[in-house]
Amino acid sequence: MKNTSVVRGRLAKLRLSMQAKGVSTCVIPSSDAHQSEYTPEHWKTRTYFSGFSGSAGTLLITLQEAYLWTDSRYFLQAERELSGTGIILQKEGLKDTPTVEDCLKKLTPNSVVAVDGWVFSVKEMETLREKLQRNNLIVYSGFDPAENVWEDRPPLPNSPVFLFPEEFSGESAGEKIKKIKSEIAKDNCNAILLCALDEIAWTFNMRGNDVPCNPVVVSYALITSEESVIFIDEKKVSHEIREILQQDHIRVAGYDCLIPYLSVQKNLKIRIDAGKTNYAIYSSIQDLSKEKNKIEFILKEGPSPVGILKAVKNETEVSGFKDAMEKDGVALVRLLMWLEKSLSGGKNISEMSVEEKLIEFRKEQPLYVGKSFNAIVGYQEHGAIIHYNASENTNKLLQKEGLLLMDTGGQYFNGTTDITRTIALGEVSKEMKHDFTLVLKGHIALATAYFPQGTRGSQLDVLARKYLWQEGLTYMHGTGHGIGYFLNVHEGPQNIRLEENAVSIEPGMVTSNEPGIYRSGKYGIRIENLILAKQVKETEYGKFYGFETLSLCPIDLSLVEQEILSKEEKKWLNQYHQTVFERLSPRLSEEEKDWLKEKTKEI
Amino acid sequence: MKNTSVVRGRLAKLRLSMQAKGVSTCVIPSSDAHQSEYTPEHWKTRTYFSGFSGSAGTLLITLQEAYLWTDSRYFLQAERELSGTGIILQKEGLKDTPTVEDCLKKLTPNSVVAVDGWVFSVKEMETLREKLQRNNLIVYSGFDPAENVWEDRPPLPNSPVFLFPEEFSGESAGEKIKKIKSEIAKDNCNAILLCALDEIAWTFNMRGNDVPCNPVVVSYALITSEESVIFIDEKKVSHEIREILQQDHIRVAGYDCLIPYLSVQKNLKIRIDAGKTNYAIYSSIQDLSKEKNKIEFILKEGPSPVGILKAVKNETEVSGFKDAMEKDGVALVRLLMWLEKSLSGGKNISEMSVEEKLIEFRKEQPLYVGKSFNAIVGYQEHGAIIHYNASENTNKLLQKEGLLLMDTGGQYFNGTTDITRTIALGEVSKEMKHDFTLVLKGHIALATAYFPQGTRGSQLDVLARKYLWQEGLTYMHGTGHGIGYFLNVHEGPQNIRLEENAVSIEPGMVTSNEPGIYRSGKYGIRIENLILAKQVKETEYGKFYGFETLSLCPIDLSLVEQEILSKEEKKWLNQYHQTVFERLSPRLSEEEKDWLKEKTKEI
Repeated sequence: MKNTSVVRGRLAKLRLSMQAKGVSTCVIPSSDAHQSEYTPEHWKTRTYFSGFSGSAGTLLITLQEAYLWTDSRYFLQAERELSGTGIILQKEGLKDTPTVEDCLKKLTPNSVVAVDGWVFSVKEMETLREKLQRNNLIVYSGFDPAENVWEDRPPLPNSPVFLFPEEFSGESAGEKIKKIKSEIAKDNCNAILLCALDEIAWTFNMRGNDVPCNPVVVSYALITSEESVIFIDEKKVSHEIREILQQDHIRVAGYDCLIPYLSVQKNLKIRIDAGKTNYAIYSSIQDLSKEKNKIEFILKEGPSPVGILKAVKNETEVSGFKDAMEKDGVALVRLLMWLEKSLSGGKNISEMSVEEKLIEFRKEQPLYVGKSFNAIVGYQEHGAIIHYNASENTNKLLQKEGLLLMDTGGQYFNGTTDITRTIALGEVSKEMKHDFTLVLKGHIALATAYFPQGTRGSQLDVLARKYLWQEGLTYMHGTGHGIGYFLNVHEGPQNIRLEENAVSIEPGMVTSNEPGIYRSGKYGIRIENLILAKQVKETEYGKFYGFETLSLCPIDLSLVEQEILSKEEKKWLNQYHQTVFERLSPRLSEEEKDWLKEKTKEI
Repeated sequence: MKNTSVVRGRLAKLRLSMQAKGVSTCVIPSSDAHQSEYTPEHWKTRTYFSGFSGSAGTLLITLQEAYLWTDSRYFLQAERELSGTGIILQKEGLKDTPTVEDCLKKLTPNSVVAVDGWVFSVKEMETLREKLQRNNLIVYSGFDPAENVWEDRPPLPNSPVFLFPEEFSGESAGEKIKKIKSEIAKDNCNAILLCALDEIAWTFNMRGNDVPCNPVVVSYALITSEESVIFIDEKKVSHEIREILQQDHIRVAGYDCLIPYLSVQKNLKIRIDAGKTNYAIYSSIQDLSKEKNKIEFILKEGPSPVGILKAVKNETEVSGFKDAMEKDGVALVRLLMWLEKSLSGGKNISEMSVEEKLIEFRKEQPLYVGKSFNAIVGYQEHGAIIHYNASENTNKLLQKEGLLLMDTGGQYFNGTTDITRTIALGEVSKEMKHDFTLVLKGHIALATAYFPQGTRGSQLDVLARKYLWQEGLTYMHGTGHGIGYFLNVHEGPQNIRLEENAVSIEPGMVTSNEPGIYRSGKYGIRIENLILAKQVKETEYGKFYGFETLSLCPIDLSLVEQEILSKEEKKWLNQYHQTVFERLSPRLSEEEKDWLKEKTKEI
């Protein structure tokens, strides 16, 4: 097979480069210099050297062996893609799988383990360094595995920057910067370094197309009391945009100019985010701080003030979201109708054609920009693969039976959507209906929860799981993630997960509500809406918050086992469906309205 | 008033002593050298210098001023007890209350802040030191405020030690020590220092009466691969006991001999618990470790292996608990009957007489030792004071109306109990019944929850609160604490609280389930049972655990608003009452049985 020999050739070249530099082991993660979840092609070094194209994975290469760790979402794909490359798959989360550290332990003491400091956060590097030191290994953080090996490496992306007008953002960059300054003053800082692309995009009301699905721009930014500087490929920023930015004392400098800029500054005390700043940049700043009369910094863990400000949506953003949900709902209603008609008309419909058709319907909507992530459209057993993406190799034809899971989302100029519906294509089993209804009960419990100020997502998570737990079932993913506003579909700092996260849910935060159940080899079920946190009560016991469901699309009533729904749950479902009908129908044709009326009928 | 001048005199003497030693500020916490919740009289230094007798509080004394911090449980009591002493009460948890750190910030730089390293844990001392250094203050940890001031200071308690036979403990000290050794080997340690009195009592199957309500013995212990040594006032340990201990290679040495013993040891690597070891001991060990060829140590945060082993009850302990619950249930049934009769007979019954009568009934039960904590018997508005203890000053006469909250517990040789019942003494309002039923719904939700292996108490806590939250209500205490087996009524490491705690709930752990609601100035409601975690299911999704309710006492049906209970909740209540009747009736007289039959009737 051609691909495997290509990968073997690349690894051979890398090993020569390692030997030349006295390196015995090299660790390559999936991230980029900005700790992005989705990375530009330029930074897909791990994919280049392993052939594994999944979004998450860590490659460890010694002079003789190579291992790739990835999680359960990608076991099948990784097995296929790694086959023949000599790279050994390490299935994360399984009891017998050794960790990266276990493998490092076996190395000869005083071996050099090399990594590229540009793609490790300060926090990750500190953890790695501690592990290596514990095993008497030497870490070398200045090793770029791609250097002199990856000859046709794609350049950094060069999509032009566009400004995101206040009409959509609801707040000027100048106002945001003012808030950020007042936040960092609490830590006695007069400057903040931003490395996360979505934080930069949000702060400066700036968008681009550097990363698929995420409208961000590759850049760094520094905000000081004097000015703000965006470090970015200068060709991407037009003269007009520069002039507008200048009004808020925002300057543009070259992408490589952050350290040179800092080297001539004085009296700066910079807030640095340990989780989002890459180690190479940090290490240069550390060096600068050691010189006389130069800058100081503090390294902070936990969410950055920008992350929290960004997570709490303002009024303009909230009403943008609501409009985007209506448009998305219309596209979904059209898709569901089309699917129903096509299947009953005997047409050949595949997972991929569902995805294509939905993009077509979303494209008809005003202000649609593109997809917010790669759609997951999984029929029958494919639905049980949590991050399944249909491809030519796997694409399944839909039949008039069983379950179809569709997790899709769009980027609109006034909002980002992410919604999952699981629908019956015909006859379904009792088990399917029962599972669906347990998931629905959990979804409703979270959607209707009230909770006092200060409550964390990890406290609420159980509400979505308890009906499943009661029957010995669970799902191994989070219940809810934050979502950006015409930004990344996954954003922090809040979430609703099993794992502890100290960030509390605050009014204005938008989070997903997506419990599910996955029957391996059979089917998958997930019901996902976006929910907006808001204050619902104030009593002598304090402020209480709750959620407003934002997503608008019918939930398949033919899958509901009505007997196990409580009166309150039925009421929620009926009210939700009434809202879906009322909000979507003005945007629908008569035929579509009739269809939706039936799908949202009272139970 | 005499008391206030006594306190003023003591403070004056302390200030002279401070001045003589160049100390400008002194901080006195409530704890003892073993980080106990309840401390022997010897260590009640904070009470001695402030006159405040509550269990929790921190006293800060400067040459001019004095402040006492305590939490909401003690606001009223502290106001009363501090009045006239010149000590300013700082109400913890209120928005405008400065913290200890805020007060320290105001001190002149380079001032000396003195503390007694014997009553601060390593962790607390590190935190304090960091705060002081941040404010350019000098910390002196060798200052005993009582020295040369507290002339009639009570000596260390000297109750004799008794062994806790294997018939009750279910496991010999030798077996426990073996398990502990294998746990510490995981950290590459060959020794462990124990400072927590309940951990020592559990490990060596040893009990005493050094602390009120807690059957523990003041001591330290060191377990090494060669032997185990208990450092204790040697007079407390009889010759017979020593001989028995010797069989498991357990030796006894003087209470002050830990450091001398360590100073002649070699090749020890000691596990030290940062949260439970006092700073003075730690600091001496640190010194020893700096000498050539001497001992090493590692300082660990998080629960100790002994704490976890102790928390998971063995079969003998579980059946002991069950027997103790039956005896406790009988005593409570008799109390409730007596109370009903006495009130309807027009007798004068007060909060304190309820407490006394219950002790009388408990004393009739086999193997009863004493109370496990100071009873909380709060009528009407007193029920809203979460840690109320009736005294001559506050003792209220009961009327034939309103709510009585009784939170009490007993130490039995085969178990420790802790139970709260809230009962109607006559007519009650709709609000009372509604509140009671919301609390009951939460209690049932936790009691009936199933959850996967690895679930933490902080994830389950919401189940007990959600019905209250839904109506804008909450309670500001934990939902559940661990409980010892003929040991401390509060023990870790697991709990069920709002706050994150990384320890998961494991089968064999016994925890309380005690949601409540407190209407300030009106009434308090709490329903508390002890619950035993156990495996309930194993599926393809893993192991699932649930709880068995251990406490046996009817829940007042006259307070239940049946309309808001679900079918499942009614079923739980009926089943619980059936169990209460079946388990208690063989121990009751015919009259008592008839009474209980009525109180546990199906709804």
